Amino acid sequence: MFSFEVIAKEGDGRVGRLVTPHGVIETPSFVPVGTLATVKAVTPEDLREIGNQVVMTNAFHLHLRLGEDLINRMGGLHRFMNWEGPLITDSGGFQIFSLGAGKEHGVGKMAPIFPDENDRGGHYGLGKKPLVKVDEHGVDFISYLDGSIHRFTPEGVIEIGRKLGTDIILVLDECTSPLHDFQYTKRAMERTHCWAQRALEAFERTSDGTQSLWGIVQGGAYKDLREESASFLSDKNFDGYAIGGSLGESKDDMHRVLDWTIPSLPEHRPRHLLGIGKVEDIFEVVRRGIDLFDCVAPTMMAHTGTFFTKESEGFQMHILNAQFKDDPRPVEEGCNCGTCRHYSRAYLRHLFLAKELLGIRLAAIHNLSFMESRMQEIRTAIKEGSFDTLSKTWNR
Amino acid sequence: MFSFEVIAKEGDGRVGRLVTPHGVIETPSFVPVGTLATVKAVTPEDLREIGNQVVMTNAFHLHLRLGEDLINRMGGLHRFMNWEGPLITDSGGFQIFSLGAGKEHGVGKMAPIFPDENDRGGHYGLGKKPLVKVDEHGVDFISYLDGSIHRFTPEGVIEIGRKLGTDIILVLDECTSPLHDFQYTKRAMERTHCWAQRALEAFERTSDGTQSLWGIVQGGAYKDLREESASFLSDKNFDGYAIGGSLGESKDDMHRVLDWTIPSLPEHRPRHLLGIGKVEDIFEVVRRGIDLFDCVAPTMMAHTGTFFTKESEGFQMHILNAQFKDDPRPVEEGCNCGTCRHYSRAYLRHLFLAKELLGIRLAAIHNLSFMESRMQEIRTAIKEGSFDTLSKTWNR
Repeated sequence: MFSFEVIAKEGDGRVGRLVTPHGVIETPSFVPVGTLATVKAVTPEDLREIGNQVVMTNAFHLHLRLGEDLINRMGGLHRFMNWEGPLITDSGGFQIFSLGAGKEHGVGKMAPIFPDENDRGGHYGLGKKPLVKVDEHGVDFISYLDGSIHRFTPEGVIEIGRKLGTDIILVLDECTSPLHDFQYTKRAMERTHCWAQRALEAFERTSDGTQSLWGIVQGGAYKDLREESASFLSDKNFDGYAIGGSLGESKDDMHRVLDWTIPSLPEHRPRHLLGIGKVEDIFEVVRRGIDLFDCVAPTMMAHTGTFFTKESEGFQMHILNAQFKDDPRPVEEGCNCGTCRHYSRAYLRHLFLAKELLGIRLAAIHNLSFMESRMQEIRTAIKEGSFDTLSKTWNR
Repeated sequence: MFSFEVIAKEGDGRVGRLVTPHGVIETPSFVPVGTLATVKAVTPEDLREIGNQVVMTNAFHLHLRLGEDLINRMGGLHRFMNWEGPLITDSGGFQIFSLGAGKEHGVGKMAPIFPDENDRGGHYGLGKKPLVKVDEHGVDFISYLDGSIHRFTPEGVIEIGRKLGTDIILVLDECTSPLHDFQYTKRAMERTHCWAQRALEAFERTSDGTQSLWGIVQGGAYKDLREESASFLSDKNFDGYAIGGSLGESKDDMHRVLDWTIPSLPEHRPRHLLGIGKVEDIFEVVRRGIDLFDCVAPTMMAHTGTFFTKESEGFQMHILNAQFKDDPRPVEEGCNCGTCRHYSRAYLRHLFLAKELLGIRLAAIHNLSFMESRMQEIRTAIKEGSFDTLSKTWNR
């Protein structure tokens, strides 16, 4: 039911075909984030029309808010959220960071550079008190909803994934902070490896072949650790590999982490870069051989009236700017999305000024379409050997 | 380009066919309200899928927020909001009440009974200071957005309607408060009649046949005045008639107002009841010969997770109630709307608990579909002579 095949390559960049029981994902692919069983402000019909192939949800948040047993009784997560395509569940490992050291240190995964990516799922109030306690066997979370305590273990996360019925289960890992030192990052990585092994054993004991389990490489921005982690996990029989944890403090750091990690991962397994995917990142991560990546930016930025476009500064157009007041043009000339086909900048600006919810949805549709269009162009370019040329047109 | 024909009758209830340049409206029809050029939380595609035939926007709010010149430069209101079906524009007459005496008296059109219908377009802060000054020639509004002063006249409202390009223009009237006495209500009615005559003259001077002008009957909850107003306006050459103003303090009062008014209106012209349309009202107004009515309730109540259903108390289901936590059923069994076809009560409750915007959209789709289904059933029933039987199944 699962397979992955590399169809074309240009340098290290590659086009692949990832088969899951809920459909095929052509890679490289951008993965919209639907933390709480909904990609913010859009419907599954919107996603299908946009061309999105897969959605990423979050086992931790769904466990806290609904419980996997309830979703299981409702027919599983696909049916519950009416998305019949492939689903990935993130494990809670990122929340060990965002509700723990990230909260304590007051930083994001690449903070202070991307403060809006501090978490994929919500706002937990101010203050630096961690809501997380990690030990060798697992982690205790204090719920940000009601203060109740929730134990997560590698085996428990497999159990949640089973009940949700998602196609791709990510192992429980410990995501570290950019401010953690080498010693702590190493200890956390070793714990992550131990948990990965336990997760794999629990997964194999209960597998009926309808779900896959992916490992997560850790090791922060330390070359030795990234190489060690990638090698350790590559020797295990995971169906795919994600790259998580701190990526340093700059784009250059992030690129270095990928350069240290990817060569040690198996060529014939898919690779997912967790939580990254601004417009300016796409070409650099694909160039290095990433197959999947997820990011909240297209939908989060939609909430404030920020539209992605090629021509604008930073690839972002802020629709509330006065210059768009009577601009009859679509957000992006030539864009074939439902928003650009039907609505002017003037109308979209009006919706955001008047705080009409339709504006957010139309912005999300455009931004997700923008990402999907880039991915389609990239897949075509790699097949034709013109990826490098294409990427130069986006290089600022 | 405009015509209206009564196709079938049962008692005073009737099925009609209202032809406009942007399409045919089968009546009786519920009219969704899109005050600010968007029916809250849904797209025109959603409306088409639901089966909505016409949308009501508001000349006053669009003038204040955008200006009719801007919308005209963007290709007119149909194109601006991407709704190619028939459009009605309310005139600002209701705002003479809601921003004037209604604000001062602290009441709605039928207040204190329907406090959520105080206005069709927004919230203007607390306090009782009126933002309106009426004289014989027109009205000055103080903008709730920036304090600027805007003069509205009968002729000016025709001019706005021309620039917006809507199919049905409602005349500027003076909507009174349920707390206004007979003398004031009579004076306001006479002013409304004078304005109606001026509007008709301005309309006829500039008509190219692509738009129609409807008069508005006033007279509060006073029998003499309602009869006088309906007779006065019936003698004029309006394309249709709306019934506006105070409808008293109870459902019985409202029914009496209709019983006094409708017999004096011409049989061969369509009749629109302004701002009314809760589920329990539908059958009573159709029974009395109303062809069109608009109401914000389906979309406004969607914002708080209130879903219309036949079986619930007051025809309203509050999805946040704990009993729906693990309820796998759709909101309404047998409902064919996009929400009920795909989503469980448990999922919808989750969306509202988590404050996910998708919930509001799915609720609006259901509520608008619920109203549209009732109207389809009613049209069929009147044709078959079974309207009275049908209405008894909804009588509580």
